[in-house]
Amino acid sequence: MNTKKYAAEAIGTFWLTFAGCGSAVIAAGFPQVGIGLVGVSLAFGLSVVTMAYAIGHVSGCHLNPAVTVGLAAGGRFPAGQILPYVIAQVVGAIAAAALLYVIASGAAGFDVAKGFASNGYDAHSPGHYSMVACFITEVVMTMMFLFIIMGATHGKTPAGFAPLAIGLALVMIHLVSIPVTNTSVNPARSTGPALFVGGWALAQLWLFWIAPLIGGVLGGVIYRWVSDEPTGTVEGTQKA
Amino acid sequence: MNTKKYAAEAIGTFWLTFAGCGSAVIAAGFPQVGIGLVGVSLAFGLSVVTMAYAIGHVSGCHLNPAVTVGLAAGGRFPAGQILPYVIAQVVGAIAAAALLYVIASGAAGFDVAKGFASNGYDAHSPGHYSMVACFITEVVMTMMFLFIIMGATHGKTPAGFAPLAIGLALVMIHLVSIPVTNTSVNPARSTGPALFVGGWALAQLWLFWIAPLIGGVLGGVIYRWVSDEPTGTVEGTQKA
Amino acid sequence: MNTKKYAAEAIGTFWLTFAGCGSAVIAAGFPQVGIGLVGVSLAFGLSVVTMAYAIGHVSGCHLNPAVTVGLAAGGRFPAGQILPYVIAQVVGAIAAAALLYVIASGAAGFDVAKGFASNGYDAHSPGHYSMVACFITEVVMTMMFLFIIMGATHGKTPAGFAPLAIGLALVMIHLVSIPVTNTSVNPARSTGPALFVGGWALAQLWLFWIAPLIGGVLGGVIYRWVSDEPTGTVEGTQKA
Amino acid sequence: MNTKKYAAEAIGTFWLTFAGCGSAVIAAGFPQVGIGLVGVSLAFGLSVVTMAYAIGHVSGCHLNPAVTVGLAAGGRFPAGQILPYVIAQVVGAIAAAALLYVIASGAAGFDVAKGFASNGYDAHSPGHYSMVACFITEVVMTMMFLFIIMGATHGKTPAGFAPLAIGLALVMIHLVSIPVTNTSVNPARSTGPALFVGGWALAQLWLFWIAPLIGGVLGGVIYRWVSDEPTGTVEGTQKA
Repeated sequence: MNTKKYAAEAIGTFWLTFAGCGSAVIAAGFPQVGIGLVGVSLAFGLSVVTMAYAIGHVSGCHLNPAVTVGLAAGGRFPAGQILPYVIAQVVGAIAAAALLYVIASGAAGFDVAKGFASNGYDAHSPGHYSMVACFITEVVMTMMFLFIIMGATHGKTPAGFAPLAIGLALVMIHLVSIPVTNTSVNPARSTGPALFVGGWALAQLWLFWIAPLIGGVLGGVIYRWVSDEPTGTVEGTQKA
Repeated sequence: MNTKKYAAEAIGTFWLTFAGCGSAVIAAGFPQVGIGLVGVSLAFGLSVVTMAYAIGHVSGCHLNPAVTVGLAAGGRFPAGQILPYVIAQVVGAIAAAALLYVIASGAAGFDVAKGFASNGYDAHSPGHYSMVACFITEVVMTMMFLFIIMGATHGKTPAGFAPLAIGLALVMIHLVSIPVTNTSVNPARSTGPALFVGGWALAQLWLFWIAPLIGGVLGGVIYRWVSDEPTGTVEGTQKA
Repeated sequence: MNTKKYAAEAIGTFWLTFAGCGSAVIAAGFPQVGIGLVGVSLAFGLSVVTMAYAIGHVSGCHLNPAVTVGLAAGGRFPAGQILPYVIAQVVGAIAAAALLYVIASGAAGFDVAKGFASNGYDAHSPGHYSMVACFITEVVMTMMFLFIIMGATHGKTPAGFAPLAIGLALVMIHLVSIPVTNTSVNPARSTGPALFVGGWALAQLWLFWIAPLIGGVLGGVIYRWVSDEPTGTVEGTQKA
Repeated sequence: MNTKKYAAEAIGTFWLTFAGCGSAVIAAGFPQVGIGLVGVSLAFGLSVVTMAYAIGHVSGCHLNPAVTVGLAAGGRFPAGQILPYVIAQVVGAIAAAALLYVIASGAAGFDVAKGFASNGYDAHSPGHYSMVACFITEVVMTMMFLFIIMGATHGKTPAGFAPLAIGLALVMIHLVSIPVTNTSVNPARSTGPALFVGGWALAQLWLFWIAPLIGGVLGGVIYRWVSDEPTGTVEGTQKA
């Protein structure tokens, strides 16, 4: 039933954004014992592992507009379902950012202007990477992410392992690229915090929609070619 | 046989509390090479992964009153078994705290008043988060934990992966929320150390029973709705 | 064929000791980016994960005298095979320590007297824990290790996941107890480095044979009771 | 179809080199929250986990000339396919290094002369290990890597877990040996960055071809003996 699918996508994207961004805002820089970028990478990736086992059989567990669009480009998802999926994902991410704002505000010293886990380039890249470097990074990372998603959910791949492969791919992507763009590869995850930070975060948000969507389409199309996949469209991909 | 089930729950909760709290007390802040909050998060989460494979077929491996109550709310566990399960879990957690006390006392400089891995809010929150922020965090985290547990043990989810999904969810929860409440989501785990710390830890213990139980019920009920699960109650859920 | 089994145990224990102790000696304290105790814990645990998939079908992949003895106590391994298994394990561990000595000596500043990843108590415990605390820790940790090994290889547990459960249990054990005893739970792993350090390491080696063996037997016996396992002995346990 | 196999090997080796070396160049030493050697080890290892699920059914997912040669020595891969596989792997690794160069150059302070994740010995070993120690380390590590690959893809090992076992073996190898050689065990991964660093990196590149190839052959041959494997050659090994 479609309502349940959209609810599952919203809840799943809520979890990814709340836990991923929450780990960065609350725990990454905690004095002496903070989780650092390794911990943040794990939090983002494990949100996909855990939700894919929980709701994979309900909605396919995309949690990410670039995944939904990339799977459609790869012939695995019906184009007519893209819009409601993306809306559900963005709603979930905004709810997550709102809740995180409430919790983080419960400690002295919290300041949303410190970034609130928003994605950015140039002066707002954690390592001050140029816009071009950031754009390329987001395209390539999302492309490889979709390539792996397409492969891990291929019919010849052993069933049941896809959530691990996909979630661990997201861990890896964060291990490399947090210093570059704070890592998006997911327009919904970028939109949530940006709405609370406003200003520069909203002004730079375009990149974190355009680049991941381009990368997602590339990944879907390239994998289809590599795996000799027949053309056609099926419902309910990314099996758990 | 029920005696074996209760023994399994007690031993499993002993393991979760001993290893989780033990990693925090003994190893988190070890000079220069300490495991930090990433290591503590892994210790708590892996205790569930390992025990779920070991005793999942015996007791369902709840190890947590909020899980037992949440699964009952989700129609997966008989209400009449809640009380003995919870008692077994609390007994296991207290035994773990006692043993940890003995071991930790074997090194100079140990002082139970440093917290002994107890959960707390306000002045006793590691990052000094307010009671309201702590309450919300525990409700939401336990809700999502039960949502994932219900999903990972759903009949349409590939068999065998549930312990990984559930344990990694507990890793994630800790990665985010140790600075907030020292992370409970488990009233038994909170009760063990609090008995040894006394004072503020006992005075604040109510929150770590009420909030996780509310969250657990919410998670069980919401998942049931999302997955269109038929009502009814079965024995022996959370299959390994 | 028995020769192949003994060879597999020797190679596997070589890997556990070489990689586990090697990570501690070479990488734990590397300036600024060292792997710390989290990395050492992962190295020890993943050595079991990887070898259990590689040689589980050959020898059962014990890699540890306490595992061999504990499985025999639990009715899963023939007592007549204990001695050759233990000899093979100790030979592998000594070879690992010898090779590690050669490699570590290839950098200036290496000094075997710094400990060479040996296990110890009192003044030779990393956190200066007393002998009693160290003894209790080794007994309890090995007991829980065997409890999990017995459970993860039980017939009702989903096939294929045992290496993950067992290896991740070893990760957890290290996350908690490196500051106490430098973590043994494995007499073979302790014997290798102790032979090169000599002196105090050899003098304290008795504890790292006695305590793990006691713990292993306890774990095997307790699990057998909890799981209502029929008595009897089978060949080739700890299936991968 | 062979073209697709070569494309898959090139893309997979691109991912291993881009993400592995990228994590080292971009994120390992990021101030305060850098991922350190644990993060780099995870990035290299998870690249194999993720790609093995994605393209295991296409090309076997070797991503490494030492794996291809070692599997041939172990009777699992046709000798006639070695050359095109190795060429595809090296092409992928060079493309990865080129892209990483472009991205890393997008931040001030990048200097390829800092090493660019190249492998080296003596003065160019991160911990200044001697050439002999480095050579031994690369031989032993690659030997054990192939031993585990052969075992994890053996017909008696549970299907589906090989990518985890193999990728986690690569994590372990890095946890131990980054301070020694910066860890190669993969001539293709070494060749990519060396071309951009030039000078010493090219002059020392021979070791990172010779030692891994020797180790790979040893590992394949030893495993074949241990597992009583029948001689003969099959297409399409290292099943995912």
